[in-house]
Order: sequence, then C-alpha cells, then structure tokens
Amino acid sequence: MENMTELANAIIIAGKAIGAGLAMGLGAIGPGIGEGHVGGHAMEAIARQPELTNVIITRMILADAIAETTGIYSLVIAFLILFVL
Amino acid sequence: MENMTELANAIIIAGKAIGAGLAMGLGAIGPGIGEGHVGGHAMEAIARQPELTNVIITRMILADAIAETTGIYSLVIAFLILFVL
Amino acid sequence: MENMTELANAIIIAGKAIGAGLAMGLGAIGPGIGEGHVGGHAMEAIARQPELTNVIITRMILADAIAETTGIYSLVIAFLILFVL
Amino acid sequence: MENMTELANAIIIAGKAIGAGLAMGLGAIGPGIGEGHVGGHAMEAIARQPELTNVIITRMILADAIAETTGIYSLVIAFLILFVL
Amino acid sequence: MENMTELANAIIIAGKAIGAGLAMGLGAIGPGIGEGHVGGHAMEAIARQPELTNVIITRMILADAIAETTGIYSLVIAFLILFVL
Amino acid sequence: MENMTELANAIIIAGKAIGAGLAMGLGAIGPGIGEGHVGGHAMEAIARQPELTNVIITRMILADAIAETTGIYSLVIAFLILFVL
Amino acid sequence: MENMTELANAIIIAGKAIGAGLAMGLGAIGPGIGEGHVGGHAMEAIARQPELTNVIITRMILADAIAETTGIYSLVIAFLILFVL
Amino acid sequence: MENMTELANAIIIAGKAIGAGLAMGLGAIGPGIGEGHVGGHAMEAIARQPELTNVIITRMILADAIAETTGIYSLVIAFLILFVL
Amino acid sequence: MENMTELANAIIIAGKAIGAGLAMGLGAIGPGIGEGHVGGHAMEAIARQPELTNVIITRMILADAIAETTGIYSLVIAFLILFVL
Amino acid sequence: MENMTELANAIIIAGKAIGAGLAMGLGAIGPGIGEGHVGGHAMEAIARQPELTNVIITRMILADAIAETTGIYSLVIAFLILFVL
Amino acid sequence: MENMTELANAIIIAGKAIGAGLAMGLGAIGPGIGEGHVGGHAMEAIARQPELTNVIITRMILADAIAETTGIYSLVIAFLILFVL
Amino acid sequence: MENMTELANAIIIAGKAIGAGLAMGLGAIGPGIGEGHVGGHAMEAIARQPELTNVIITRMILADAIAETTGIYSLVIAFLILFVL
Amino acid sequence: MENMTELANAIIIAGKAIGAGLAMGLGAIGPGIGEGHVGGHAMEAIARQPELTNVIITRMILADAIAETTGIYSLVIAFLILFVL
Amino acid sequence: MENMTELANAIIIAGKAIGAGLAMGLGAIGPGIGEGHVGGHAMEAIARQPELTNVIITRMILADAIAETTGIYSLVIAFLILFVL
Repeated sequence: MENMTELANAIIIAGKAIGAGLAMGLGAIGPGIGEGHVGGHAMEAIARQPELTNVIITRMILADAIAETTGIYSLVIAFLILFVL
Repeated sequence: MENMTELANAIIIAGKAIGAGLAMGLGAIGPGIGEGHVGGHAMEAIARQPELTNVIITRMILADAIAETTGIYSLVIAFLILFVL
Repeated sequence: MENMTELANAIIIAGKAIGAGLAMGLGAIGPGIGEGHVGGHAMEAIARQPELTNVIITRMILADAIAETTGIYSLVIAFLILFVL
Repeated sequence: MENMTELANAIIIAGKAIGAGLAMGLGAIGPGIGEGHVGGHAMEAIARQPELTNVIITRMILADAIAETTGIYSLVIAFLILFVL
Repeated sequence: MENMTELANAIIIAGKAIGAGLAMGLGAIGPGIGEGHVGGHAMEAIARQPELTNVIITRMILADAIAETTGIYSLVIAFLILFVL
Repeated sequence: MENMTELANAIIIAGKAIGAGLAMGLGAIGPGIGEGHVGGHAMEAIARQPELTNVIITRMILADAIAETTGIYSLVIAFLILFVL
Repeated sequence: MENMTELANAIIIAGKAIGAGLAMGLGAIGPGIGEGHVGGHAMEAIARQPELTNVIITRMILADAIAETTGIYSLVIAFLILFVL
Repeated sequence: MENMTELANAIIIAGKAIGAGLAMGLGAIGPGIGEGHVGGHAMEAIARQPELTNVIITRMILADAIAETTGIYSLVIAFLILFVL
Repeated sequence: MENMTELANAIIIAGKAIGAGLAMGLGAIGPGIGEGHVGGHAMEAIARQPELTNVIITRMILADAIAETTGIYSLVIAFLILFVL
Repeated sequence: MENMTELANAIIIAGKAIGAGLAMGLGAIGPGIGEGHVGGHAMEAIARQPELTNVIITRMILADAIAETTGIYSLVIAFLILFVL
Repeated sequence: MENMTELANAIIIAGKAIGAGLAMGLGAIGPGIGEGHVGGHAMEAIARQPELTNVIITRMILADAIAETTGIYSLVIAFLILFVL
Repeated sequence: MENMTELANAIIIAGKAIGAGLAMGLGAIGPGIGEGHVGGHAMEAIARQPELTNVIITRMILADAIAETTGIYSLVIAFLILFVL
Repeated sequence: MENMTELANAIIIAGKAIGAGLAMGLGAIGPGIGEGHVGGHAMEAIARQPELTNVIITRMILADAIAETTGIYSLVIAFLILFVL
Repeated sequence: MENMTELANAIIIAGKAIGAGLAMGLGAIGPGIGEGHVGGHAMEAIARQPELTNVIITRMILADAIAETTGIYSLVIAFLILFVL
C-alpha cells in the first residue's frame, strides 16, 4: 500500500524535525551564555585598560571563537539530521 | 485512500511545528541572557569611562554579534525544519 | 470520508498551537531576563553619572535592541508556524 | 458522522488551550523577572540620587517598556493561537 | 450518538482547564518574584532615605504596576481560554 | 448509554482537578518567594532604622499586597476552573 | 453496567488525588522558602538590635502571615479539589 | 464482574499513592530549606550575641513553626488523599 | 478470573512503590540541604566562639530537629502508602 | 493462565525497581550536598582554629549524622519497597 | 506459551535497568558535589595553614567518608535492584 | 510486506535523530559554559597583566582545548549514532 | 514463535541502553562539577603558596579520588546493567 | 515473519541511540563546567603569579585530566551501548 509508505515517511520527518530542534535549541544555550560571559568581562577589561582595547577585543574574538565551537557542532549535527540521515 | 495521506501530512506538519518551536524557543534563551550580560557590563563600563562610550559600544556590538550567532543558527535550523525538510 | 480529513486538520492545528506556544513562550525568557539585566545596570549607571543620562539611555536602547533579536526571531518562527507552514 | 467532527473540534480546542497557555505562561517569566530587576535597581538609584527621581523613573519606564516587548509578543501569539489559527 | 458528544465535550473542558492552569500558574512566577525584588529594594531604600518614603513608594507602585502587566496578560489569556475559546 | 456519560464526567473532573492544581500550585511559588524577599529586607530595614518601624511595615504590607496579586489571580483561575468552567 | 461506573469513579479519585497533590505540594515550596528568608533576616536583626526583639518578632509574624497566604490558598484549592469538586 | 471492580480499585490506590507522594514529597522541600535558612542565621546570631541565646532560640522556634505550616498542610492533604478521599 | 486479580494487584504494588519513592526521595532533599545549612553555620559559629561549643551544638540539634520534621512527615507518608493504604 | 501471572509479576518488579530507584536516587541529593556544606565549613573552621580540631570534627560528625537521617530514611523506604512491599 | 514468559522477563530486565540507572545516576550527584565542596575548602585551608596539612587532609577524608554514605546507599540499592530483587 | 520494513526504517531514523540531537544538544551546554568561564577570566587577567597577554591567551587556548574534549566526544557519539550504528 | 522472542530481546536491549545511559550520564554530573571545584581551589592555593605546589597537588589528587568514587560506582552500575544483568 | 525481526531491530537501534545520547549528552555537562572552573581559576592564578605559569598550567592539566575521567567513562559507556551491547 502506498499509505503505509507515507506514514513511515511522516514519522521520519517528524522525528528528524524534533531531533534537529533539540540539537540546535539545547546546543545554543551553552555558547550563548558562555560568549556573553566572555563579552561582559571584556567590556569591564576595556573600561579598566582603555589603551588595550584592540588587544582585548582580538583575544575576546579568539575566546568566543573557541566557545562557539560546540554551537557549530550542534549546527552540523542538526544539518546532518535534517539532510544526510 | 486519500485519508491516510492526510493523516501522514498532519503528522509531518505537527512534528515540524514542535521541532521548529523547540529549536527557536530553546535557542533564544542563551543569546538573550548572554547579550544581556554583555550589555549590562557595557552600561557599567560607560558609567566608569564616559569618554570611551563609542569605543565600548562598538565593541559591545561586536561581542553581541558573536553571542548572537547561535541564535541565528537556531533561526536557520527552524527555517530549514519548516520549509526545506 | 470527510471525518478523517477533519481529524487530520485537528492534529495539524493542535500541533501548530503547541509548537508556536513553545517557540514564543520559551523564546521570551532569555531576552526578558537579558534586557532586565541591561536596564538594571543602566539605572545604576545613571545614578552614578547623572549627566550621562542620555548617553546611557541611547546605548541601553541599542543594547536592548540587540538582546531583543532572538525574541523577534521567536516571534517570526511562531508566526511562520501558525500561518505559513 | 457528526461525532467525528465533534471529536476533531475537541482536539483543536484542547490543543489551542494548551498551546496558548504555554505561550503566555512561559512568556510571562522572563519579562516579569527582568522588569523586577530594572525596578529594584531604580529604587536603589532613587535612594542614592533623590533629586534624579523623575529622570530615573522615566528611564525605568523606557527600560521596562523594552523588556515588556517579548511579553507582548507572547500575548499576541497566544491571541493568534486562540482566535485566528 | 449522544455519548460521543459528551466525550468530545469532556476533552474540551479538560484541555481548557490544563491550558488555563499552565497559563496562570506559570505566569504568576515571574511577576511574583519580580515584584518581590522591587519591593525588597524599596524597603532598603526607605531605610537609607526615610524622608523619601512617599517618593519611593509611589515609584515602587509604578514599577510594580509595570512588572504586573505580564501577570495580567496571563490572567486575560486564562480567562479567554476558559470562557471565550 | 449511561456509562459513557459517566466516563466523560470522570475525564472532566480529573482534568479540572489537575488544571486547578497546576494553576494554584505553580501560582503560589512566585508570590511566596517574592513576599519573603520583601519581608526579609523589611526586617533588615527595621534593624537599621527602628524608629521607622511603622513606616516600613505599612509600606511592606503595600509591597506585599502588590506581589500577592498574581497569587490571587491564580486563586481566581483555580476557582473558575473548578466551579464555573 | 456497574463496572463502568466504578472505572469512572476510579478515574475521578485518581485525578483528584494527583491534582490536590500538585496544588499543595508545589504550593508549599514558595511560602516555605519565603518564610525561611523572612525568619533568617529576623534572626540577624535581633542579633544586631536585641532591644527590638519584640518589635521585630511581631513584624516578622505579620510578614510571615502575608507570605503564608498563597500556601493557604493552595490548601483551600486542594480541599475543594478533594471534597467539593 | 468482580474483576473490573478490582481494576478500578487498583487505579484508585495507585492514584492516591502517587498523589500523596507528590503532595508530601514536594511539600517537604520548601519548609526544609526555609527552616535550614532560619536555623543557620540563628547559629550566626548566637555566635555574635551569646548572651541572647535563649531569646534567639525561642524566636527561631517561632519562626520555624510558621515556616513549618505549609509542610503541615502538605501532611494534612496527603492524609486526606490517602484515608478520607 | 484469577488473572485479573493479579494484574490489579500488580498495579497497586507498582503504584505504591512509585508513590512512596516520590514521597521519600523528594522529601529528603529539603531537610538534607537545610540541615547542612544549619550545620555549616554552626561550624563557623564554633570557630568564632569556641567557648560556646556546647551552647551552639545543643541549639543546632534543636534547629535540626525542627528542620527534620518534614523529612519525618515524608517517612510517615511513605510508610502509610506502603503498608496502610 | 500461567502467563498473566508472570506479566503481573513483571509489572510488580519493574514498578518496585523504579520506585526504589527514585527513593534512593533523589534521597541521596539532599544529604550529599548538605554534608558537603557542613564538611566544607568544618575545614575552614579548622584552618582558623587549629587547636579546636577535635572539637570541630566531633561536632561535624554530629551535624552530619543529623543531616544523614533523611538519607537513611530513603534507604529504609527503598529496602521496604524492594523486599517487604 | 513460552513467549509471554519472555515478554514478562524483558519487562523485568528493562524495569530493573532503568530503576538501577536512576538510583545510581541521581545518587551520584549529591555526594559528588558535596565532596567537591569539602575538597575545595580543604585546599584553601592548606593554603592558609600549610603546617596543618595532615590534620586537614585526615579530617577531609573523614568528612568525605560521611558525605559518601548516601552514594554508597545508592550503590547498594542499585545492586539489590539488579541482582536480588 | 514491504510496508513493515518501511515502518521499521522510520523508527530507526527517528530514534537516531532524537538520540543524536540529545547527545550533541546536551553535550554543548557544559563546554560552552565552561569555555566562557575560562575566557571571561582570561579577559580579566589580560586587563590586570597586559604584558602577559600572549602567555595568558596560549594557556587559555590550552584550557579551552581540554574543556572542549567532552563536546568533541558528544560530536563523535552523535556522528556514530547517525552513520555507524 | 521466534518473533516474540526477538521483540522481548529488543525490549531488554533498549531498556538496558536507556538505564545505563541514565546511570552514567547523570552520574558524571556530580563528580565532574565537584572535581572542578576542588581543582579550581587548588589553582588558587598554588597561586597563594607556590612553595606548597606538591603538597597541594598530591592532596588535590586525593580529594579528587574521593569525589571520583560515585562516578566510578556509576560506571560499575552501567557496566553491570549492560553486561551482567 | 521477517517483518517482526525488522521491527525488533528498529526498537534496538532506537533504544541504543537514545541511551547513548543520554549517556554522552548528560555526561558532558559536569566535566565541561568543572574544567571551565579549573581553567578560569588557572587564568587568575597566572595573572597573580606570572612566574609560576608553567607550574600552574601543568597542574591545571592534571586537575582537568581528573575532572575529565567521568566524561571519558560516559564516552566508554556510550560506545559500549552502541557497539558491544
């Protein structure tokens, strides 16, 4: 029957949607809070050492880039769940 | 039967709606709190170093832009769940 | 049968309602707390540097506008779930 | 049959009620806490700078108005779920 | 059959009760904590500036009124779920 | 059949009980913590300014009355779920 | 059949038990923590101003009585769920 | 049939057990933490004002008695669920 | 049939086990944390006032005994669920 | 049939396992954290008053013994669920 | 039939696995955090009183041994669930 | 039948998607927050010891690399769930 | 039938996988946070007393070894769930 | 029938995927936060004692290695769930 095929297809798509939603939704919590922590301390650091603004900001970007990695992993996994699985 | 097709379609749409809702809803928590942390410290920094206002604000925007990224990833995944999957 | 169509339609509407509710409800937590953090520090900053009130408030609005973005993304996704999906 | 129509209608109404409840209930947490944070710091600010009361309060209202936005979005989405979907 | 109508009616009422319960129950957390925060800081402010009691209290009421709004939205949504939906 | 009517009635009562339980149970968390916060700071304020006891207590009652409102809304909604719905 | 009536009755009692359990169990968290906060600060206040013990304790009882209200509401709702619904 | 009566009875007992478990289990969290808070501050107060030990302890018992009330309400509700419902 | 009786019995025992597990498991969290708070502050108090060790410890036991009560209530309810219900 | 008896037995064992798991697992959280709090403050107290080491440690054991009680209750309830129920 | 026996056996093993997993998994949270708290304060204590290292460490082991108890209870219960039940 | 095969396949894919989503989504929370903590303290350290910028940043990268490991494990497990299982 | 045997086997393996996952996943949270707490304070202690590095580190390893125990218990239980049960 | 075998196989794979996802996802939270705590304090320690950089970093790696262990256990259990069970 064609119908069972459609039902199976519906379960696949619904499962993928929820799986990718969990991967990216949960995966955005950590980096978002972490980068906000880095950024907040960088603002304070600039206020204390204005002449170091460029030094601090370039390092902040580096620190953020590292904290971003798990967010990017989540993005990759969500993509893979949606389009490669 | 036409009916089974409609039921399968209903499961797909309901699954997509919940998946995209989780992706964007959870994904907005981290960046929202993180950017608030950056912004709050930037306010303090301006109060301590008023002559650095522009320096601090441009860096705050940069720090926020980085913290925003996982929120944007969530938006992208939610879009993909809704319209491309 | 007409009935199965109605049942499928009911599942779609219920799924959309819960998905949009999760997207907007969860998505309002982060920006709400984050903007409150920015606003609270801005109040403190004004109390310390009253002559900077306009400088601080315009920057606070800027910082809030950035923290608001993920809330707006949630709004957009909730709209799309409700009316475009 | 008339009955299946009624069952489908019941699922729609129950789904809408729970979806709107989640949207508004969760959506009231963030702005409520955030505005309380702004208001608490405004009280402190008035105690430190009584002559700035009007300046602080008008800015507090502005900061609260911004923090309120995601609560209003939640209200809008809950309305749409209930009456437009 | 009359019975199916009653079953459908039961699902509607149970769904409405749980939806309204979530809307108001969750919606009371944020404003309750937020207003407590405002009130606590107002008590401190009075202890530091007793001659400002009226100024602080009137502003506290204003701040609380704003923090109350999302609680009122929750009340409105719960009413609408119960009696208008 | 009489039985189906009873089953429908049972679902209504169970749904109402759980809905009202959620509304009042969750709705008591926020005001309880908030009023405790107000009261705790009022105790401190009295210890610092004993001659202001009446001023502080009357304002504390006012602040508590406002923080109580969402608890009262929860009570109202729970009553409505139980006896009017 | 007598049996269906018993099954319906069982669902009613189980639903009421869980609803009342949620109402009172969750409803005891807020006032318990809040009153502990008031009491803890009252202990501190007595240690700082021993001659004010009676003033502080009578006010603490007043503050606790107010924080207790939502716990009493929860008790009332739990009673109503159990015996009046 | 006798069997259905037994099944209905089983649902009643299981529902009562879980309802009473939630009522007492959740209801013990708030007072436990709250009374610990009162007690901890009372220990500190004694260390600072050893000559006030009796004054502080009698007031601590009073404060604890008030914080205990919601725990007692939970006990009452759990009893009622188990033996009166 | 004998079998249905056994099934009903199984549901009763499983329900009782889970209900008693929730009652005692959740009910041990509050007193455990609260008594740890009392004990921790008592250690500090002894370090500051070694000559008061006996005074502090006897009062600590009193404070702990009060904080223990809700844990004992949970034990009682768990016993009643298991053996009296 | 023998089979139904086995199924009923399986439900009993599975229910007991989950109930005892919840009782002991949740019940270990509070005492574990609480005793860690006591122990941490005892370490500090020894560092400040090394000559009181024995006094502090014997009292710490007493304080821990009291905080342990709810953990022991959980153990007892878990045993009773497993072997006496 | 042999099959029903196997199904009943499968339910028993799955229920035991989840029950033991909850018992040990949840039961490791409290002691882990608590012992970390003890250990962290012991490190500080050594840094302040290096000549007391042995005194502090032996007491730390004692404090940890007590905090470990609920973890050991969890281990015992998990073993009993797996192999004795 | 071909259909059952498709249904089994659908369950596999949905299960894999949710499993991988949980692995990566939850697994991104810890490293994200942890690396943000490292990065925030590194910003502060640079503001205090600007001449040590390179020393601090290279060590920060090392510390982040170690904190990243569990995120990478999560990525590996998510990949294995998706493509090797 | 052979099929029922396979289904029973599938339930066993799925139940074991989820049980072991909960045991090890939850069981890694406490020791991970606790050991991080110990390690963080050890870093501080070295910075304050560099000449005590070896003393502090050997004690840190001891403190960590104790905090590790519940993690090892979780590992043991997870192994037993997977291969001995 | 071949189909039942496939269904059983699907349940096994879905169960393994979710179990391994929980093991690794939850298991990455503790070490990630813990190692971030160690690393953050190491950054501070370097800023205070720059000449001790190598001493601190080598000990940080040691502390991290210990905190990593439960993450590695989670990895091992996830692997075993996926490929050995």
